[in-house]
Amino acid sequence: MSCISDVAGIRVGHAHRRGDGWLTGTTVVLAPPEGAVAGVEVRGGGPGTRETDLLDPRALVERVHAVVLTGGSAFGLAAADGVMAGLAARGIGYPVGPPGQVVPIVPAAVIFDLGRGGDFEARPDPSFGASALDAALAASGPCAQGAVGAGTGAVAGGFKGGVGTAAIVVDGGAGPVTVGALVVVNALGSCVDPASKSLYAAGFGVPGEFDDAPVGTADLPVAASLPIGSPPPGPVVPQATTIGVIATDATLTKAQCAKVAGIGHDGLARAVRPVHTLLDGDTLFTMATCAGPAPDLGGLQVLLEAAADCVTRAVGHAMLSATTVTTGAGSWPCLRDWAAG
Amino acid sequence: MSCISDVAGIRVGHAHRRGDGWLTGTTVVLAPPEGAVAGVEVRGGGPGTRETDLLDPRALVERVHAVVLTGGSAFGLAAADGVMAGLAARGIGYPVGPPGQVVPIVPAAVIFDLGRGGDFEARPDPSFGASALDAALAASGPCAQGAVGAGTGAVAGGFKGGVGTAAIVVDGGAGPVTVGALVVVNALGSCVDPASKSLYAAGFGVPGEFDDAPVGTADLPVAASLPIGSPPPGPVVPQATTIGVIATDATLTKAQCAKVAGIGHDGLARAVRPVHTLLDGDTLFTMATCAGPAPDLGGLQVLLEAAADCVTRAVGHAMLSATTVTTGAGSWPCLRDWAAG
Repeated sequence: MSCISDVAGIRVGHAHRRGDGWLTGTTVVLAPPEGAVAGVEVRGGGPGTRETDLLDPRALVERVHAVVLTGGSAFGLAAADGVMAGLAARGIGYPVGPPGQVVPIVPAAVIFDLGRGGDFEARPDPSFGASALDAALAASGPCAQGAVGAGTGAVAGGFKGGVGTAAIVVDGGAGPVTVGALVVVNALGSCVDPASKSLYAAGFGVPGEFDDAPVGTADLPVAASLPIGSPPPGPVVPQATTIGVIATDATLTKAQCAKVAGIGHDGLARAVRPVHTLLDGDTLFTMATCAGPAPDLGGLQVLLEAAADCVTRAVGHAMLSATTVTTGAGSWPCLRDWAAG
Repeated sequence: MSCISDVAGIRVGHAHRRGDGWLTGTTVVLAPPEGAVAGVEVRGGGPGTRETDLLDPRALVERVHAVVLTGGSAFGLAAADGVMAGLAARGIGYPVGPPGQVVPIVPAAVIFDLGRGGDFEARPDPSFGASALDAALAASGPCAQGAVGAGTGAVAGGFKGGVGTAAIVVDGGAGPVTVGALVVVNALGSCVDPASKSLYAAGFGVPGEFDDAPVGTADLPVAASLPIGSPPPGPVVPQATTIGVIATDATLTKAQCAKVAGIGHDGLARAVRPVHTLLDGDTLFTMATCAGPAPDLGGLQVLLEAAADCVTRAVGHAMLSATTVTTGAGSWPCLRDWAAG
């Protein structure tokens, strides 16, 4: 499998809690100690975010030290406190004084998963961020996908959602660059085409990547089979959100990172329908380690489309890696179990 | 005195800690329980913020339940956790399920005051937010100004900074509306005109408001007397930030609130020079309770300029309310003590 951690220097850590009313978690995408140049684009109508304003290309700070993706809706932003504390304790951050006096730059975005484990108040706190950071610091190789980390409580179009990742090496013009994406799929919309009953993402893989993606025959879950344009069912307006990180070893400016994040949302649009709704807080970050070459214009074009494709593929892997979950609050079948009948 | 709390339904609470290495705090500007329609504009180059993306006029959520202003640089964003918890415990927030299941909407912005009390690690945590919220819930009448709440560790152009507030009633076209501002002045630039040795803000008061504003004769502190364009002194790049809230009882849209915040920055520009630098994270929020009339175009023009003037006046009151502070990390004279020789 390919993974956002194929980008040298990028590590992923998950922390989560299940059972006893819990079904939520936090994922940390960790930059190298010197940080990664970063950008963001928020395109959903219901975002929950932290430290995104400093990613404006006009702002001073260029590098982030980690990005936090977390469950818990806006309450989950507290997870970033634990990541900041853990990084600061290790001397990692933006220097603001004598050696050791640093402010870690840790943007964050949340998904809405409140109550899915049964307890509305069971949501990530700073300890989740600290644990996910520890996991990232200890990580090597591909990260876990599915109902892990920030994807633990994720649901998408009536199916179990979760974490997915994908990466690719492309020609950046001035040399090869690696591009990867990690997404937490928790969409109001569906990742499954109601006509073909297969994943929208399945058509966007590298050769062979989605050969084992199932095609269903059963009726789709209600939330996945709503005609586009239908109001959501039930008395409570559902809340959703797909969030993620695109990483690359290419040398990019902050403005270019913002552009990459924006194009990444095109990858979401291909994988999820509808997406970017008023009830989704869809947010994508970009982290560029800058260890590799700076792409020329042609190379940047290639990188941008690779980023979009990695996002689409990552959505596919999130859905394929998901596992059926039943809690006191409900049951969410995974795509594979549904397709297997 | 006039105060942002002249806007019916808006309450202010401060929490702070001084001594034993501490010199920082948190201020909560509390909306009525149903929230206030809100907007934001970030114009500084080094912002530290939380929950600003949802204030985009295209985003779904219209109302915020409180705005948190805090010391502690990005670490201080943790104070908002305590405010969210306190509001949620009272059932105040955006409803996301059965009664009582709410997500409080609590945007936040920070100032850089790390280490000013002597201990780099002495910064606001969730308990500061909880205490400031409790103070706001118990508040009536004008709030304290000067070295209180988020202004406890504030410094501006070599002088002690702090919290200031001002308000006015204007003709909104469809009826009178109240406009108020509260700012935390912690600017890289100076609030004192080096030519006249008086506050820039002193020229923008209502009749009599700044009659007692001192005019100095002594040399200005180094940081206040730098020729515009000079690099800051010292080996460590200074960090600053002026943040604040504009409130009104007028009925405004989110987009109008964002416009008010933007014009508010013009008020900062008149009161602080230089301002909005790459080392300031200058951020202003607007909260509209919507209990009053919706201004017509002429009334909105009046409201906008009143908002800018309230910001300027509030900066003046912050500097006039400041008191000289000396800690293990330094000494910052207040404007009044300096002018008194």
